[in-house]
Amino acid sequence: MVRNMWKPTRRLGLASKLSSRPLSTGASPKPSRFRPCTLSGIQPTGVPHLGNYLGALANWVRLQDTRTADSHVLYSIVDLHALTVPQDPIVLRRNVRDMAASLLACGIDPKRSILFRQSKVPQHSELAWLLFCRTPIGWLSRMHQWKSKLQMLQQNNPNAAAITTANATISLMSGGDENAKLDGDENTQGLNIGLLAYPVLQAADILIYRATEVPIGEDQLQHLELTVMAARSLNSHYKKEIFPIPKGIFASSSSKRIMSLRTPTSKMSKSDPSDASRINLDDTPDQIRSKIRKATVDSSVGITYDPVNRPGIANLINIYSSFSNEEVAQVAARFATSGNKDFKEAVGERVIEGLKPIREELLRLRKDMGFVEEILSEGEERARHLASRTLRDVQKVVGLI
Amino acid sequence: MVRNMWKPTRRLGLASKLSSRPLSTGASPKPSRFRPCTLSGIQPTGVPHLGNYLGALANWVRLQDTRTADSHVLYSIVDLHALTVPQDPIVLRRNVRDMAASLLACGIDPKRSILFRQSKVPQHSELAWLLFCRTPIGWLSRMHQWKSKLQMLQQNNPNAAAITTANATISLMSGGDENAKLDGDENTQGLNIGLLAYPVLQAADILIYRATEVPIGEDQLQHLELTVMAARSLNSHYKKEIFPIPKGIFASSSSKRIMSLRTPTSKMSKSDPSDASRINLDDTPDQIRSKIRKATVDSSVGITYDPVNRPGIANLINIYSSFSNEEVAQVAARFATSGNKDFKEAVGERVIEGLKPIREELLRLRKDMGFVEEILSEGEERARHLASRTLRDVQKVVGLI
Repeated sequence: MVRNMWKPTRRLGLASKLSSRPLSTGASPKPSRFRPCTLSGIQPTGVPHLGNYLGALANWVRLQDTRTADSHVLYSIVDLHALTVPQDPIVLRRNVRDMAASLLACGIDPKRSILFRQSKVPQHSELAWLLFCRTPIGWLSRMHQWKSKLQMLQQNNPNAAAITTANATISLMSGGDENAKLDGDENTQGLNIGLLAYPVLQAADILIYRATEVPIGEDQLQHLELTVMAARSLNSHYKKEIFPIPKGIFASSSSKRIMSLRTPTSKMSKSDPSDASRINLDDTPDQIRSKIRKATVDSSVGITYDPVNRPGIANLINIYSSFSNEEVAQVAARFATSGNKDFKEAVGERVIEGLKPIREELLRLRKDMGFVEEILSEGEERARHLASRTLRDVQKVVGLI
Repeated sequence: MVRNMWKPTRRLGLASKLSSRPLSTGASPKPSRFRPCTLSGIQPTGVPHLGNYLGALANWVRLQDTRTADSHVLYSIVDLHALTVPQDPIVLRRNVRDMAASLLACGIDPKRSILFRQSKVPQHSELAWLLFCRTPIGWLSRMHQWKSKLQMLQQNNPNAAAITTANATISLMSGGDENAKLDGDENTQGLNIGLLAYPVLQAADILIYRATEVPIGEDQLQHLELTVMAARSLNSHYKKEIFPIPKGIFASSSSKRIMSLRTPTSKMSKSDPSDASRINLDDTPDQIRSKIRKATVDSSVGITYDPVNRPGIANLINIYSSFSNEEVAQVAARFATSGNKDFKEAVGERVIEGLKPIREELLRLRKDMGFVEEILSEGEERARHLASRTLRDVQKVVGLI
């Protein structure tokens, strides 16, 4: 989903170890002259759900708390990316505010992290243009996310169809071909160029801060690779180390994804029409209890961890273990002889307890949005300061100044 | 040529009347709430030649001098557009300086016009992204300039081939089709996305100042149409008159193009490898005399105006008449019985006389580049002020603020 592109989709887990690995580049690593800098972004989808929290945000907080003192940590609400699909302006505004308050409620600490809205830092768009001038179209039309957009349109998915402009539909012509084709007919080129160019803006998001590590989901790996290619392309063309080569921070292999409570074979998602499929960080204890009570599970007796055959139960075990900081086996063993009802009740109480401080802080912040706005403004000033230094360097190198 | 995209290619003539005509829109015009605003841009190609001057810059000066007191007049050196093709940073820097000094030398008056470098106004790139999110790829792949880029590569033109990245070539697959196709194969997508997106940045250049009239050449008509479509698309989608619908200012039908002195069937151009094909605004009187003396003409006896059969002589008559403010027939009649040598001498002296004040001012300004820089900086501050108001309105409308 483009809406969530900037959100890691793999659960990193509260207790799981992180693996930071360089992308295969063929070059041997050498000491970087760049200050360590962690950057990630999330689309303004409103109040995050449990999948966002356990899969990404809890990890953001952990990263912020474990970076060295000389590191920069930046977290961006990527509202410019959100505009690549249709947005109701009123909803978008509310979603940005809700996301900002939620990030603070989850523990993003303005003293340790720079929290900002992408659209308030002009240098993202400015660097994006400079990168456009060096990004072959072929790099972009090979992106899986782009190809899946095309595919969705072909399948006439109503959500996807809304992306097209009036009277425009798209046809996918990639049969047996590695790359998606953009057909030339007037009626088949309705996708906006922002969707195709999306990964270039994402590269600018990363490179404008000279980020050295980027927590992302596996689904963003290809976009990070494009960022690396863009950085290498400029560094090598201008024979100058303008950008560091950013590394992805991925979940460890033991990490688990949080799945929909209704359809536990699909990821928990904001775009699921059923609110009962997800737990939102501002759900009341009663809502949480009710949603978990109604969660889809099989009717086998007892609790066992079997994601393939018992996805519903496995998902609840994953959720429980994330909050209890236990291995899934431990959780399964403890509830081995419990009935579904009792187990669900235990899960519900764990989640309620785990989310309580977040929810309380979120409700408090919602009554003090002036404070949230202040934090964002400060973050944006700091972000602009960092970004303007990079942009100036790039402008010098390409001959604009 | 992309390098000159923003430069009108049709000679407007010093004495010719301008025709300002709205693009056909199907809607009846209504009084605009927008302040009259004239905007044009020119690529930083260094010191302009006679074709640039007579075809565009002289007209810019005329427009500046004839707008009403409440009008804004903005002239932009579009350095961001220049980056869509490879640039040597050192040459680009020098070319921007030379173009700025030349524009002032030609008579652009900072008291009446806002002269600025595009890259110094972040709002161009910022608005461009917002427009990307509403511009179907089909609008862009239909552009003649884009298609001719593809074609040039197909014909393996060395200049065009330089645009491709290493190991990448492009193939045009438009046989019988209205639109150029972007083929999906890895080796055929080497053009950078900046080239495809070029007209969107150009739309942003115009719309960010809410320009109401845009002096352009006929070769830019399609790009202006795209600008109009973008403006209409946003106005109608958000049910708000965010942008005025810009009108093109074209040369009157009697206008003439200034042709190469060596190959008078081609336009005078910076990209011609022979410097003798053009007169540069900083050429010495001796250089001008020598170039016109060597200008390619036929060997018929006497001087007649016959662009089809006598393109070289017709070009010289056009040049003479531009400086003498006479009709070409008048000029031809006066020299009817002259030999080529005498006529060329008369043309040379006219050009020397006409360009003398420009050349002198240019040489003076080159020794005072601090002054030029100051004028640009002031222009850029004013441009940013105007642009930030528009961007803020657009950001509000789309829901970013």
